[in-house]
Amino acid sequence: MKKVAIVGASGYSGEELVRLLLKHPEVELTAITSRQNAGQTIGEVFPKFTGHPRSRTLCFTEPTPDLLAKKAEVVFLALPHGVAAEFAVLLLQAGCTVIDLSADFRLKSAAAYQEFYAREHPAPELLKKSVYGLPEVYRPEIKTASLIASPGCYPTSILLPTLPLLRAGLVHPNSLIADSLSGVSGAGRKAEVDYLFCECNESVRPYAVPRHRHLSEIEEQLSLAAGVKVTIQFTPHLIPITRGILTTLYLAPTQHFNDGAAATDFAERVAACYRSAYGQEPFVRLLEDRGLPDTKNVAGTNVIEIAWRIDPRTGRLIVMSAEDNLMKGASGQAVQCMNIRCGFAEPTGLT
Amino acid sequence: MKKVAIVGASGYSGEELVRLLLKHPEVELTAITSRQNAGQTIGEVFPKFTGHPRSRTLCFTEPTPDLLAKKAEVVFLALPHGVAAEFAVLLLQAGCTVIDLSADFRLKSAAAYQEFYAREHPAPELLKKSVYGLPEVYRPEIKTASLIASPGCYPTSILLPTLPLLRAGLVHPNSLIADSLSGVSGAGRKAEVDYLFCECNESVRPYAVPRHRHLSEIEEQLSLAAGVKVTIQFTPHLIPITRGILTTLYLAPTQHFNDGAAATDFAERVAACYRSAYGQEPFVRLLEDRGLPDTKNVAGTNVIEIAWRIDPRTGRLIVMSAEDNLMKGASGQAVQCMNIRCGFAEPTGLT
Amino acid sequence: MKKVAIVGASGYSGEELVRLLLKHPEVELTAITSRQNAGQTIGEVFPKFTGHPRSRTLCFTEPTPDLLAKKAEVVFLALPHGVAAEFAVLLLQAGCTVIDLSADFRLKSAAAYQEFYAREHPAPELLKKSVYGLPEVYRPEIKTASLIASPGCYPTSILLPTLPLLRAGLVHPNSLIADSLSGVSGAGRKAEVDYLFCECNESVRPYAVPRHRHLSEIEEQLSLAAGVKVTIQFTPHLIPITRGILTTLYLAPTQHFNDGAAATDFAERVAACYRSAYGQEPFVRLLEDRGLPDTKNVAGTNVIEIAWRIDPRTGRLIVMSAEDNLMKGASGQAVQCMNIRCGFAEPTGLT
Amino acid sequence: MKKVAIVGASGYSGEELVRLLLKHPEVELTAITSRQNAGQTIGEVFPKFTGHPRSRTLCFTEPTPDLLAKKAEVVFLALPHGVAAEFAVLLLQAGCTVIDLSADFRLKSAAAYQEFYAREHPAPELLKKSVYGLPEVYRPEIKTASLIASPGCYPTSILLPTLPLLRAGLVHPNSLIADSLSGVSGAGRKAEVDYLFCECNESVRPYAVPRHRHLSEIEEQLSLAAGVKVTIQFTPHLIPITRGILTTLYLAPTQHFNDGAAATDFAERVAACYRSAYGQEPFVRLLEDRGLPDTKNVAGTNVIEIAWRIDPRTGRLIVMSAEDNLMKGASGQAVQCMNIRCGFAEPTGLT
Repeated sequence: MKKVAIVGASGYSGEELVRLLLKHPEVELTAITSRQNAGQTIGEVFPKFTGHPRSRTLCFTEPTPDLLAKKAEVVFLALPHGVAAEFAVLLLQAGCTVIDLSADFRLKSAAAYQEFYAREHPAPELLKKSVYGLPEVYRPEIKTASLIASPGCYPTSILLPTLPLLRAGLVHPNSLIADSLSGVSGAGRKAEVDYLFCECNESVRPYAVPRHRHLSEIEEQLSLAAGVKVTIQFTPHLIPITRGILTTLYLAPTQHFNDGAAATDFAERVAACYRSAYGQEPFVRLLEDRGLPDTKNVAGTNVIEIAWRIDPRTGRLIVMSAEDNLMKGASGQAVQCMNIRCGFAEPTGLT
Repeated sequence: MKKVAIVGASGYSGEELVRLLLKHPEVELTAITSRQNAGQTIGEVFPKFTGHPRSRTLCFTEPTPDLLAKKAEVVFLALPHGVAAEFAVLLLQAGCTVIDLSADFRLKSAAAYQEFYAREHPAPELLKKSVYGLPEVYRPEIKTASLIASPGCYPTSILLPTLPLLRAGLVHPNSLIADSLSGVSGAGRKAEVDYLFCECNESVRPYAVPRHRHLSEIEEQLSLAAGVKVTIQFTPHLIPITRGILTTLYLAPTQHFNDGAAATDFAERVAACYRSAYGQEPFVRLLEDRGLPDTKNVAGTNVIEIAWRIDPRTGRLIVMSAEDNLMKGASGQAVQCMNIRCGFAEPTGLT
Repeated sequence: MKKVAIVGASGYSGEELVRLLLKHPEVELTAITSRQNAGQTIGEVFPKFTGHPRSRTLCFTEPTPDLLAKKAEVVFLALPHGVAAEFAVLLLQAGCTVIDLSADFRLKSAAAYQEFYAREHPAPELLKKSVYGLPEVYRPEIKTASLIASPGCYPTSILLPTLPLLRAGLVHPNSLIADSLSGVSGAGRKAEVDYLFCECNESVRPYAVPRHRHLSEIEEQLSLAAGVKVTIQFTPHLIPITRGILTTLYLAPTQHFNDGAAATDFAERVAACYRSAYGQEPFVRLLEDRGLPDTKNVAGTNVIEIAWRIDPRTGRLIVMSAEDNLMKGASGQAVQCMNIRCGFAEPTGLT
Repeated sequence: MKKVAIVGASGYSGEELVRLLLKHPEVELTAITSRQNAGQTIGEVFPKFTGHPRSRTLCFTEPTPDLLAKKAEVVFLALPHGVAAEFAVLLLQAGCTVIDLSADFRLKSAAAYQEFYAREHPAPELLKKSVYGLPEVYRPEIKTASLIASPGCYPTSILLPTLPLLRAGLVHPNSLIADSLSGVSGAGRKAEVDYLFCECNESVRPYAVPRHRHLSEIEEQLSLAAGVKVTIQFTPHLIPITRGILTTLYLAPTQHFNDGAAATDFAERVAACYRSAYGQEPFVRLLEDRGLPDTKNVAGTNVIEIAWRIDPRTGRLIVMSAEDNLMKGASGQAVQCMNIRCGFAEPTGLT
């Protein structure tokens, strides 16, 4: 049994990690930390875990890096950006494998970090070392990584549907528009008026237009896939659901459709591209012609649904994805990375 | 035009008062206060008021009692209990009519206040002077009151259906059980984790069992109507809607039903009692046999729906009410009181 | 008092028309029809109207055109497409003014109708006569129209933000992408599994990709404004709110931004364009820099909120709108048209 | 591997059974039936199962009893009442074990069935044979039963909290009041206007007052536990959540509290009674003093949460329970029964 710990286990991603790791057959959850809940058991903090055998024995503790390093081989960081980096440095020095759910190590460029997060990067020397934890793209690198930067929820919903198309040259790199709709858990368990029930219920609203922080990692990854610098249009919206992100992507094919036959041909090339990229992936569900994505079909799972349609009227390719922002968009994907890193079967504890 | 002001206008009840008073044809809203929004216009703080002619001119100010007294003849207090009393004292001295939406002047007994609110009453000498602002019960007193204590949302939903039955001796005074379901706006616009969208969505939970603060005013009013000291069982629950309270009441008739005829006879006495009490009331809707209450039928209105059923199997009377907690349960009722006090037609600005 | 009637008054748009016309000070609602509710009063069918003086006297009747023509000067049709046209023909012959909320008379082209609605147009000769009921665009024509085709909910949310920009040549006509999110009431009061609470709650899903029927009227209107044939990309989504449409539009400016100064200059041209088009409009709220649209700020009102942002990184213009799909998107706008047609002050009964 | 089948697998309970049985390690799901979906795979009907290895091979078939009997040893019936009985008769004759989720075999009395379900019982001879599938009460009988009648969702939420108290004589048998709040999935996947999103959202309403059908099985079981005929007051309400039932029970203790010491003593007797009844139960969570039930803490699980409070002011005992109506209230409990009947560890496939 691999010993694992979670730092910052009282937020929504942290709670989801607790849920996943408690039922994971290959690991033992040896430590969970939370400043505000230190001293309480998981059963006290999260009543839904009361039935678990360890609900009265597993206690939140203060987050002390050297103690954590003694208790765990793999440490998940579910902390705000900036704070996460400090822990990562110490835990890596102590020999732990670190899976960081914050934004601190997702970028290769410290300059981009400073531009989008408005602060100097706290540990720029680690940026080269870190691996972007998108298993469908970086599986070989994840296998040996000591520092895994788990992608953001929006980036996952955008990158998985677009990277194969860019790599195959099927769409113009600078044509991308991503319109994303997120459930409120994406904002975290923060006591802010904006996320009160009465402010979110019967409401839908865009925010952070036109420049959301996640753009930095989205564009870095798109650029790597396209081989040229990519700029993307991205608009996040808040909708009244707890879990889920639905992203609709508007893409310009590199091939023009003069007629229906050409459109059909292109559609087949797109389908072939997706099948080749994801046909064997356990957590990517290609809907082909069987319907369109719906967040309720992926809630509580680590699956991302992807569907696409050619619009012969406009010559555009429309791609839609749905994921659970706390699972494939955060904690589920982090556990998937752990499985790869530790040599467990990839779906272990995730199905 | 009567000049009116609102102290504490940035919470949900305060916002609802702004909405009602801005469109009220007999009053001019001369001042609205809020510490946190001082200096901002109502259009800035509440985008939904942007279209109103005064949205760019009516500004939130700091709550300064002597300034308020100069600007307004009637002042609404939408403040936390304890704080409201301080303002009331000063505004009454300055000659204003005060309509207080807090709990500070709802009780006649300073001892009960101390028992339920865990603090000494800040102005016990005013308790005799204040009138409980339930128009269907205290209309004559409201007409001349200088201090009106607007009832709580739960108490309104419980008292209106039960007081006529108690006064008519149709039910046993100590048999009352009130099971209430409230929308989340009842908790106010407070940045607390418990009221986040993700904590309330897909959730229903009882709270404050068995002793909610509103019991104090409920029991004082029930006792006055019954002529004996009444103790009631009351269980509030939080449900994922923004507005609305649904209360189901379980009552023991003073008459036993030996047969169907007796039950029918009792049902007719109950119906007659309600018709006599509320047949002419503009804001009480007796559903008779036409269906059961539903909060969505009263949302945004000052109406309370009341329905009742005799259960011949158990010999009990079941009474159900639905109201909008921010309207008949708070701000709408406060405006109704103002209309009575100022001699306006009672439904003015409320339909 | 102008006599008005509603045909098909038991759906969501019909119910909203009842609400608006019952409180409208210049009209008398003389007839409401519904096959399924014929014989019942409005109070019986819609408990929320119980308090209205006419709730026990105004009865649903069978929809009989010649009877309607005797009772009303203005008739609103809230019927499925195809059915509406039959009524319109007869009512126009009888001399009524007809305001049709269906899709039957929104298009000038019978061929486009056949293409998108998969049936021959039932009264093509009336297409020339009908006026598209978008007051901000066709106010002069509405003033004298005998047949007003009230726009669809999606089209309203897309056309109002884009038409001024197209007319001013500020954006490329064929660059338009509209990503729309609609509340469930847009699907009507239809007993279909897809719109059950449990199928919509915690769900967000695109539908009718890539070819929704509303494209036909959107493109016809865009083409008229641009002076060239316009094709638009449009993706509707269903989200778990009752009322509201949020549309995010992606537009390509005709001017390139080489630098910040050029971007600022273009932003000012856009702002000037909107102010010129809508600065005096009672139901268009330009948010300028004061925030982004939110459906909860327009729910229950006839207002459309419009905001825009220049993205200097991509060179695109992002425009966002929010409306209540049953008000500005349907019944409110229909009443606005009636006010114009009948010479009432335009906001009468709508504020 | 035990071979199992589900008849009526396209409703909400049926779908939940599919989910549970597909991941159950001791059974093979050999047949699922649905008239409307016959010929389609589970992946086609329920996209969320797409990832399962059998999603493209397991097909819905027409419900043919003799075919089912050949394919399965245990058959779950998720059918409307009346219809279920017909299948049960044939399947039992063919030697299958039948677990029926309808109301057809929950009552011992055919007369009570006729009274509450308004039809003659279709197979009264089987009523003696059937076992009420409440494992915490009838575990020994379930072990050998050939016909298990899975309890209703409301009854489960009421019986588990009350039966131990009645058996121990701690509360008066005829004092029971149950106020229940149910999520909309309890109404089934039926295309009815009442359960549309727009009719349930922002709505809470009582229904079937004062005489819901589930009263029949509740009272039969209560009477068996109390040893006298019990009549209960029961009010169901519909609230806008998908899954969950919250029941608040009002009970009259057989012991009076003259003072705090007596109340404390009674509280301890209640706690001891619950611990004795459920201390070892895998799916009953006694909250003791650790908080109150919340449906979101049991959603997706087979757990029922129970909390209780003594009210020294009224002398009443308040007991509250929360369960997932599709799990402990229906399909989860049915699988729990199957585990007992087949000799599997009771929590198999349910944690």
